[in-house]
Amino acid sequence: MAATKYAIGVDLGGTTIKIGIVSDKGKIIKKVVVDTLAEEGYKKVIKQIKKGISEVLSKNKKTIEGIGIGSPGLVIRKKGTVENPPNFPGWKKVQLGKIISEEFPYKTYVENDANAAAVGEQIFGAGKRHDSFIMVTLGTGVGGGIIFERKVFAGETGGAGELGHLSIDLNANQCKCGNVGCVESYAGINYLCNSVKRQMEKNPDSLIVKWVNEENKTLEPKLIHEAAEEGDPFALDVIHTLGINIGAGLTSIVNVLDIATIIMGGGVAGFGDRLFDTIETTIKERVLTPHRTRIKLKQAKLKNDAGIMGASALVFQ
Amino acid sequence: MAATKYAIGVDLGGTTIKIGIVSDKGKIIKKVVVDTLAEEGYKKVIKQIKKGISEVLSKNKKTIEGIGIGSPGLVIRKKGTVENPPNFPGWKKVQLGKIISEEFPYKTYVENDANAAAVGEQIFGAGKRHDSFIMVTLGTGVGGGIIFERKVFAGETGGAGELGHLSIDLNANQCKCGNVGCVESYAGINYLCNSVKRQMEKNPDSLIVKWVNEENKTLEPKLIHEAAEEGDPFALDVIHTLGINIGAGLTSIVNVLDIATIIMGGGVAGFGDRLFDTIETTIKERVLTPHRTRIKLKQAKLKNDAGIMGASALVFQ
Repeated sequence: MAATKYAIGVDLGGTTIKIGIVSDKGKIIKKVVVDTLAEEGYKKVIKQIKKGISEVLSKNKKTIEGIGIGSPGLVIRKKGTVENPPNFPGWKKVQLGKIISEEFPYKTYVENDANAAAVGEQIFGAGKRHDSFIMVTLGTGVGGGIIFERKVFAGETGGAGELGHLSIDLNANQCKCGNVGCVESYAGINYLCNSVKRQMEKNPDSLIVKWVNEENKTLEPKLIHEAAEEGDPFALDVIHTLGINIGAGLTSIVNVLDIATIIMGGGVAGFGDRLFDTIETTIKERVLTPHRTRIKLKQAKLKNDAGIMGASALVFQ
Repeated sequence: MAATKYAIGVDLGGTTIKIGIVSDKGKIIKKVVVDTLAEEGYKKVIKQIKKGISEVLSKNKKTIEGIGIGSPGLVIRKKGTVENPPNFPGWKKVQLGKIISEEFPYKTYVENDANAAAVGEQIFGAGKRHDSFIMVTLGTGVGGGIIFERKVFAGETGGAGELGHLSIDLNANQCKCGNVGCVESYAGINYLCNSVKRQMEKNPDSLIVKWVNEENKTLEPKLIHEAAEEGDPFALDVIHTLGINIGAGLTSIVNVLDIATIIMGGGVAGFGDRLFDTIETTIKERVLTPHRTRIKLKQAKLKNDAGIMGASALVFQ
């Protein structure tokens, strides 16, 4: 049996940076979390990344194969640059890979966080036995990654896989990206909760309305899920509609890419089987006939530390 | 300079089969057209293909490198099978590649006709200088092909690139494929003309209405184009809306694939600059910011014999 290998995984988030030393068996042997301090500008963020990596490396005796960084924004993979990550003020185009590999004696791989999550599932998770799959991450944003024949399909500049910005209705919801009707403008957590808020008046008997208005609970996916568990018709309808919207988007992607396995992760995926079943039914009803029997929808395996795992997987891939 | 090479290109259409001997410089040195006779079943169609190939080969003295076939329907490229080509009754799944290569002493390549058109543009046409591009064919159907790093991106089974079946409105037009709001259900020639027909009553002053109702002209893309050339507001609006619909679909594809060069061919592309400009403006307005400056829209170069050329290009690729 080959000796265990180790890599550093850096999960660059809007609020915190999570950094870990990960084995090629998928075990995190050390973990550090530092604040991102994004509002203080990109130089500060880079300082924080360096600080975290130094911390995780202190007293380390394992041989490190490389550093993997999963970052929001458009990542030009070959150059290791990160462009316009949303919610990082003042950050236009930063040569993150170069900067980090100049500071530490390791080869550095930078990838879009959604692509990194896909690589994580491929190396450590639900994608192990699939040569090709579409990874969808349902969170504040809706991200995606395309794995084709065991490699990230990255497009011309490394920006492929923006599944959240596939439009399902050219005349409907305005999306922050500038386009109209993007999947994210329905399924992104804030968009979804705002849409529920707007519909509350029309659904006065809903548990959601009661919990939010009378019990001061926060309107979040978890609350909608709990109301649905109680059989609340409004909550059930919200999740059903969400499933149709996500399913409609994925149908187009399956038709265009001819990749029939879909792995779903992230917060909104916490709606569980109810959401999954609607998505699966929608795709199977709508997709081109030859694909119908091939569609497989799977839940992502990596949970809390998916970001660190995915980033480290960039080194092992 | 290397000696000129030759291949046979077979363009399998719903009405006729066009077959040619094509040089690797893109010159057709002999051409034969036979009826498809699709309504007589798949065995008859195969007979017709064989007949056409034999005819084109009679008295041929060039060395033939192989046979390329562009076929409608889902083509499983590795196996050379063709599934469910629309408008070919009784044709479920046929091992076309195997059947043809057993009859003739040449290696046979079968590819979806839209993918073959993309390969044709890559080898002989507007895609020569682009490693990656999206090919869209606007005809009765809306087909597509994805060329990534000079190869067809074929997906898991060879069915990728069905750009016509990307949905731009999950609640609107019913498409023949079973889905709703597909680009083809707006831009396919029959769908487009039927939509114009439905709007004629509301546009009694339009030249289109005059020409169709009083002069008994056929409602077809050419007629709409001519009315637009005369400044007819209804015709201009039809083409403008068509451009927005196609542009909205292409926006999603660019976001998902990160491929920014688009080559457009086929009948509806006859609307010319007017259509092209709207498509380009729509994409540039809607696509993710980093792609905006990279978008390039080009007209396909191969015209009448694009099918034969594309099929033969499968051999040269």
